[in-house]
Amino acid sequence: MRGYRQYLYDHTARRYLDTVNNVAHVGHQHPRVVEALQRQAAVLNTNTRYLHQEILLFAEELRSILPPELSVLHFVNSGSEANELALRMARTATGRRDMLVLEVGYHGNTTGCIEVSSYKFDGKGGKGAPPYTHVLPLPDPYRGRYRGNDEATGLKYAAFAQKAIDKAKKGIAGFIGESIISCGGQVAPPPGYFKDIYRQVRAAGGVCIADEVQTGLGRVGDHWWAFELHGVIPDIVTIGKPLGNGHPVGAVACTPAIADAFANGMEYFNTFGGNPVSCAVGRAVIKTIKAEELRENAWHVGNYLKASLQHLQERFPIIGDVRGAGLFLGIELVRGDELKPCTTEASHLSNRMRENGILMSTDGPYHNVLKIKPPICFSIQDADFLIDMLSRVLEEDVFNF
Amino acid sequence: MRGYRQYLYDHTARRYLDTVNNVAHVGHQHPRVVEALQRQAAVLNTNTRYLHQEILLFAEELRSILPPELSVLHFVNSGSEANELALRMARTATGRRDMLVLEVGYHGNTTGCIEVSSYKFDGKGGKGAPPYTHVLPLPDPYRGRYRGNDEATGLKYAAFAQKAIDKAKKGIAGFIGESIISCGGQVAPPPGYFKDIYRQVRAAGGVCIADEVQTGLGRVGDHWWAFELHGVIPDIVTIGKPLGNGHPVGAVACTPAIADAFANGMEYFNTFGGNPVSCAVGRAVIKTIKAEELRENAWHVGNYLKASLQHLQERFPIIGDVRGAGLFLGIELVRGDELKPCTTEASHLSNRMRENGILMSTDGPYHNVLKIKPPICFSIQDADFLIDMLSRVLEEDVFNF
Repeated sequence: MRGYRQYLYDHTARRYLDTVNNVAHVGHQHPRVVEALQRQAAVLNTNTRYLHQEILLFAEELRSILPPELSVLHFVNSGSEANELALRMARTATGRRDMLVLEVGYHGNTTGCIEVSSYKFDGKGGKGAPPYTHVLPLPDPYRGRYRGNDEATGLKYAAFAQKAIDKAKKGIAGFIGESIISCGGQVAPPPGYFKDIYRQVRAAGGVCIADEVQTGLGRVGDHWWAFELHGVIPDIVTIGKPLGNGHPVGAVACTPAIADAFANGMEYFNTFGGNPVSCAVGRAVIKTIKAEELRENAWHVGNYLKASLQHLQERFPIIGDVRGAGLFLGIELVRGDELKPCTTEASHLSNRMRENGILMSTDGPYHNVLKIKPPICFSIQDADFLIDMLSRVLEEDVFNF
Repeated sequence: MRGYRQYLYDHTARRYLDTVNNVAHVGHQHPRVVEALQRQAAVLNTNTRYLHQEILLFAEELRSILPPELSVLHFVNSGSEANELALRMARTATGRRDMLVLEVGYHGNTTGCIEVSSYKFDGKGGKGAPPYTHVLPLPDPYRGRYRGNDEATGLKYAAFAQKAIDKAKKGIAGFIGESIISCGGQVAPPPGYFKDIYRQVRAAGGVCIADEVQTGLGRVGDHWWAFELHGVIPDIVTIGKPLGNGHPVGAVACTPAIADAFANGMEYFNTFGGNPVSCAVGRAVIKTIKAEELRENAWHVGNYLKASLQHLQERFPIIGDVRGAGLFLGIELVRGDELKPCTTEASHLSNRMRENGILMSTDGPYHNVLKIKPPICFSIQDADFLIDMLSRVLEEDVFNF
C-alpha cells in the first residue's frame, strides 16, 4: 500500500485515482516534501524554546501568500488546534464568548471546536448548540430556504446575522466559517454573503475567523485562500490539513491587533508546534505549489472539470447541482423538482467508481453530495478519466428514473 | 544546529549536555526512529479512513506496555489533543462535567485543557477556576500545608477530594492529574495519595484520568508509567510528548467500558491521528526503548543521579529537596528553615550551567526548582559530568549564604 501524487495503490498494487484526499495537497508522498522531512528529521527536531531558523523561513514563506494585514503567525499541529487557538484569540481580544457559526459547519474534534460545529452538536450524539453559540442558516443557493446565486440572495441569508447579534445579550466575540462549507455539502454561499456578515460582525465589535483548513493554500485556484473569492479579509485565518501534505502541521494567522490583545500574560506554548521538522515540511509544501504552479493547475483543471461536470449534468437529470471552485467541487444527486436527496444512489455511485479505479466520497447533511477535492496536481487527463467513468457508471439503470 | 542523543549542538558546533528535553525521549534524532519516519514518509501517509497495518502494529506495541485493562486506543497529534479527548470521554461516560484537578497542574493549550489547568487559570492572564473545576491542594510533601513523605500525609491530602466531591452539586465526571506534578515543581505526592483519591472519585461515580504526557513511557524507570509507582490503574491514560520522539503523536488509552460509553454516535475523527507515518514513528520509539533497555537505564542512571544529588545536598544547604523518580527529578533551591524560594539563584544556576555546557531549566510556582528530564539514554558519565559541574558552580559565592 502506497501513495504517489494523485494515486493510491492497494495491497495488490492496483492503482486508484484519488479525488478525495485534500490532505495530500501537492500529491501523496511528493518527493520534494518527503526529502525536506527526511533531511530535517535527521538533524534536529525540538520545540520553539530553542531558536532555530526553520521557523523564520517557514513564516516568511507563509506570509508571502497571505494578505499583509495578517502578519502574525502561530504554529500548531492540526486544524483542530488552529481553530481552538483562533477561538481563544477572538474571546480574549473581545472579552466575550458568543460566536456566530454556520449550520452544518465543522471546525474540529476538541470540545471547544465541537461547541462551534453544528455538524457535530446538531448531529447524532450531539446535544444542540450551547447557549453562547448562534447558528446561522446554511446559505445554500441550491436547496436552502432562499435560492439563487446572486447578491440579493446573499444579503437575505446574511440578514440572519443581525438577528443573532441582537439575541446575544452579552455581545459577540465573532464569527467562524468556512468560505465553502465542506460538511454542508461543498456549499458555496452566494455573492455578497461574507462581505455583509463581516460588516455586521465588525459593527458589533466581533472578530471574523476564516477556517481555511480545507479550502486554503491554492486549492480554489484563482486565489490562495477561499475568503479571497468573496473579497473579504478576515481578522484570523486558520490553516490545517494541506499545510504539511500529511505531516501534522497547522497555523493561525492574525492581525497584530489580535495578537497584541492575546498576549495578556497567559503564555501560549505548543510542544510540537513550530518544530524545525514541521516547519521544513510546511515550507516545502508552499515552495512546491509555487514551483510547480499547482494553484494555477487547480484553477485550470478545476474549471475544466467543473465545465465537464456541468456538461454531464445536461445528460443525467440525477445531477442536480455542480458547484465549488478550483479543485474543491461538489456534485449533488437529487430526484425530481422537489430535489429529493439521492443518498443511496450517491453511496452506490461512490462504490461503483471505486470498483472502476476511482476513489470518491460523499458529504452534506443528506450524504448525497459527491465531494471532489483531490491532490492539486490532478491533471486534465485525470479529469477526462473521471468524467468518462462517471458517465459510464451513471448510464447504469439504478441512476436513471 | 543539530541534536544527537542526549546532546544539542549550537551554530558554532559547541556541544551541550541536554537535561531538559523529555520530548526527544530516546535521544535527539535517534537513528532508529529517524529511519522509521523516513521510510514510511516516502511510501504512504494518509488518514485512518484507509485501512493500513501500521496502526495495528503500533497499537499492539503500545498495548504491550499498558495494563491489560486499558485495551482501547485512540491516536491523536499532541498531549493537548489527548487530554481534550480524555475529558470528552469522561464527560460522555458519566453525563457530568465537573472535574477534580491538582493545584498548579497543567494539561495543555486548548480551552478545554486550560479549564482543568490550575497552572494557567490561576496564573498570569487567568481568571481562576471555572465553576465546574475543583482544585485540590498540591500534595507537596516538602513545602505543602502537610509535610512528610508517608501515607498518613498522603491521606490527609487526599481528604480534600471528598470535600470537593461534596461541593460539586451536579456530581463529578472525574479526576485528572499527573502522577509526578511537573509544573508544580516535579512534586511527587506522598504514598497512598492517588490510591485514596481514586477510591473516592470512583465511589462518586467519576472516572480517573492519569496524564502521562511527561512521565510516561519508561521515564520513571522501574515502571512504564508513573501511575504504577502508586499502585493504581486509571480508567483513561493520556500519552503525548515522548511517544513520537519529537514527531507530533499522542494517544489515549482507556477501558472498553469508557470506549463503549463514548461511542454514542458522535464520531471522533482526527485527520492526522493514527496516520501511518506517526504510527511507524511511535512503534519505533517503543521498540527502541525495549531493544536498548532504556527504561532500565532510566532506573539505573536515575537512581545513581538522585543519590549523587542527595550527596550534594549534604554539602550545599541551598539544596532544600531532591525528588522524583527515574529520570524525572527535581532539585528545589531554598534559603533557611522557612524554605524561602531561591528563584533568582535557580535562574542564575541554570545560566551558569549553560555557560559550562549543560542545559537545565526551572519550574514550580516559585521557579526555584531545577527540573531534570533528559533523553532517557542519559548515561552514568553524563550524570557524573552534571554532578561535577553542579558542585563547581554551587561553590560560587552567590549560592552560599
